[in-house]
Amino acid sequence: MASKLTSREADYSKWYNELVVQADLAQHSDVKGCMVIKPYGFAIWERMKAVLDEMFKETGHVNAYFPLFIPKSYFSKEASHVEGFAKECAVVTHYRLMNDPDGNGVVVDPSAKLEEELIVRPTSETIIWNTYKNWIQSYRDLPLLINQWANVVRWEMRTRLFLRTSEFLWQEGHTAHETSDEAVEEARRMLDVYADFAEQWMAMPVLKGVKSANERFAGALDTYCIEAMMQDGKALQAGTSHFLGQNFAKAFDVKFATRDGGQELVWATSWGVSTRLMGALIMTHSDDAGLVLPPKLAPIEVVLVPIYKGEEQMAEIVGALKGIADELKAAGLRVKVDDDDSKRSGWKFAEHELKGVPVRLAMGPRDLAGGTIEVARRDTQTKSVVEAAGITAHVKSLLDEIQQSLFDRAAQRTQETTTRVETWDEFNAALETGGFIEAHWDGTSETEELIKKETKATIRCIPLDAKDEPGACIRTGAPSKQRVVFARAY
Amino acid sequence: MASKLTSREADYSKWYNELVVQADLAQHSDVKGCMVIKPYGFAIWERMKAVLDEMFKETGHVNAYFPLFIPKSYFSKEASHVEGFAKECAVVTHYRLMNDPDGNGVVVDPSAKLEEELIVRPTSETIIWNTYKNWIQSYRDLPLLINQWANVVRWEMRTRLFLRTSEFLWQEGHTAHETSDEAVEEARRMLDVYADFAEQWMAMPVLKGVKSANERFAGALDTYCIEAMMQDGKALQAGTSHFLGQNFAKAFDVKFATRDGGQELVWATSWGVSTRLMGALIMTHSDDAGLVLPPKLAPIEVVLVPIYKGEEQMAEIVGALKGIADELKAAGLRVKVDDDDSKRSGWKFAEHELKGVPVRLAMGPRDLAGGTIEVARRDTQTKSVVEAAGITAHVKSLLDEIQQSLFDRAAQRTQETTTRVETWDEFNAALETGGFIEAHWDGTSETEELIKKETKATIRCIPLDAKDEPGACIRTGAPSKQRVVFARAY
Repeated sequence: MASKLTSREADYSKWYNELVVQADLAQHSDVKGCMVIKPYGFAIWERMKAVLDEMFKETGHVNAYFPLFIPKSYFSKEASHVEGFAKECAVVTHYRLMNDPDGNGVVVDPSAKLEEELIVRPTSETIIWNTYKNWIQSYRDLPLLINQWANVVRWEMRTRLFLRTSEFLWQEGHTAHETSDEAVEEARRMLDVYADFAEQWMAMPVLKGVKSANERFAGALDTYCIEAMMQDGKALQAGTSHFLGQNFAKAFDVKFATRDGGQELVWATSWGVSTRLMGALIMTHSDDAGLVLPPKLAPIEVVLVPIYKGEEQMAEIVGALKGIADELKAAGLRVKVDDDDSKRSGWKFAEHELKGVPVRLAMGPRDLAGGTIEVARRDTQTKSVVEAAGITAHVKSLLDEIQQSLFDRAAQRTQETTTRVETWDEFNAALETGGFIEAHWDGTSETEELIKKETKATIRCIPLDAKDEPGACIRTGAPSKQRVVFARAY
Repeated sequence: MASKLTSREADYSKWYNELVVQADLAQHSDVKGCMVIKPYGFAIWERMKAVLDEMFKETGHVNAYFPLFIPKSYFSKEASHVEGFAKECAVVTHYRLMNDPDGNGVVVDPSAKLEEELIVRPTSETIIWNTYKNWIQSYRDLPLLINQWANVVRWEMRTRLFLRTSEFLWQEGHTAHETSDEAVEEARRMLDVYADFAEQWMAMPVLKGVKSANERFAGALDTYCIEAMMQDGKALQAGTSHFLGQNFAKAFDVKFATRDGGQELVWATSWGVSTRLMGALIMTHSDDAGLVLPPKLAPIEVVLVPIYKGEEQMAEIVGALKGIADELKAAGLRVKVDDDDSKRSGWKFAEHELKGVPVRLAMGPRDLAGGTIEVARRDTQTKSVVEAAGITAHVKSLLDEIQQSLFDRAAQRTQETTTRVETWDEFNAALETGGFIEAHWDGTSETEELIKKETKATIRCIPLDAKDEPGACIRTGAPSKQRVVFARAY
């Protein structure tokens, strides 16, 4: 097992890095900026993926797969897209290696140079809209509701596991619609799907909002987002859904025959969440003892640990635990009996804590004799002894309780750290303590950039439920119609 | 809907290309060598993936994810691997674009040149064994049973949808073991998994065997394979499982503390199947009317088509069909009611035939009045009228029958086209008609290459169940211990 983690208070960032590695979630690879997602981390991502995929299908979407490579020229077709995306990216220039004439391994074959360089996709709007051109002729072909699960690459100099890596895994939905209203509705629907997933499955409360012009996706008319508050007072953008208007249809000449016999450009959305959600999950719930997982996403919901001396006791207790495990499995739970005889139970307790298993059941000889079992909750690190008979119902309701309790705890923290400020001094004071800051802003990009430059705080979003409320911009004093939400962010 | 397909007899290759596109399975993209997998094709691949993933997990494997990019130097570490793989590949040389100083879009930023080029993975042995080095210290860390679902790139000049594309999707298992025997056992176990999947799910009979030295994976001591026979008499390698010995452990210095306190190099396997299976599936069962899918892998097992005149009839019949559809769904079947009023029923019949839906149920006014329904089988293109009551049980048993019948038909074809030859003339005659050819071979790479050069036939495998049988090589007359299987192949 791993060494003790740095505490969150001592160094939140160090705590995070150590936790990700020690809990066997991911590690840096030798390839700069690329991570290895280890089996335990990948098992959590697989559960996220399965749930999201089902939610996408329930809302009428189908999956497809588009090429990894995008011709360089495609990026120049949508003017603002190229500014945002085509810069820091992996460029394929050659398609062959050859033996080094000097005998030192292999070298790039200079004769195998591509006529046009290929970009490893940083996002797929361009290649997909270039394909949609041939799929859409008439309003009868709409809406087109397609999602892709894929790897993407955005070259990063400073990387952090899950939060910012050059290669990451994600899904990207790309939909095509007859009308602007329909496209906006789709973008909002998928934002709701993301928010439901974050809250119901990740137990992570989120703020739904729309981005300011500065923070918009390159090529979008509106970017909707969900924002979550981490334990260290910094915000994390957990998912985005874009209303792209007719920008990509225009760039790739995608028109359709309308119901009244005309021709119109198609309306578009795109939306995505990525392995960044793993970072959000970790930073929302985990503690100094390690990972804390919401039961619904935990690869193992319940671990059963025998406490014994000698082989005879072991056989008896492991036998009893396996019986209980079978009962729990029959009730649909993900269960593991840790009967590894080469490890002490204390070691196992710490290991399963580190890995965030929500419930631990332990049984010793006295439990066996008395028909009891020890139940430990990972989230509160509390223990109780209960009757072994009826343990399944107890564990099931406990898992529900933990799921809800994690959400409530995170919601309370988010609420308690949210500050409403009226002045520049109050704003700066609030930034020191962290959390979301509700403040008036004059609505200009200039002021937004000035605030960012001076404080590193950005407008996380204009909440969808924001009320009209006249006020004065915290920085310029100019009139404002409503509050927006600021924070420092990941 | 699409135009009529070229017949298989007229031009098998053209038939295949047309079918893949017209049945909405895949299409070429504008990026040379890369395909777009369309939603209907992807739905079939998703089913394959789900079934295989479960089979891998049942045999003790877990999923993980390793980087897309591999440093160029890694390929030089395993001597034979570099010969086989590091040549035709996508090479990333730069990590940034910039605005063209001449104002023509974007160009590669010459200052953003990588110190060491990165190769887009053609297969991941090197990067994975470089990672395993840190994961394996002792026999307690073994076996390590990991699988990855990923995209890979092998540059191809002549491509065919699903069969040979520069980018394709696959899974690659990479396992590490204490002993040679265990690793061989693992490689054989996964070959059995592949064979079971091919036969039980794809309804595609396969030959299990081991490759000759010439056809081995670059870096393997033994390559096991499953080979299937297509309708045109050409073989298709549908999956491979490699016993890698200690080659990659040696190249990446992966040693473990043995049970008796020594140090040894780790033993390895790798195994993979890819979207190529889609091509195998198509070419095994489909006919001149389009795709034929085994029910177990069909995204839609049963389509229900109403036949009506006027809105009143439509409402009644669609209502009745929806009732039946609900019953079929409740029985666990994948079902679609095609109530699109803008298409004629004849058009729908042809469309669902083209897309290979195994069973079509059609109901007209007379059926509705008489309590009957028309049942059409896609595989035999036969129809019958049955009582609507009890249709669920009928359809369920029919789907089982179709699954079995597809396998039987393919097995019979494979068997009928397999020839046992004794002489060079017989061999050449058999090549003209196609199919597997069981022949004696003197066991030398020289003869194998000579035969390939003269006839384009290769040794598909030495069957695992081949009997010892002395004979004379068909090409050289030199002594042979057993027959091997030749064919021309995809």
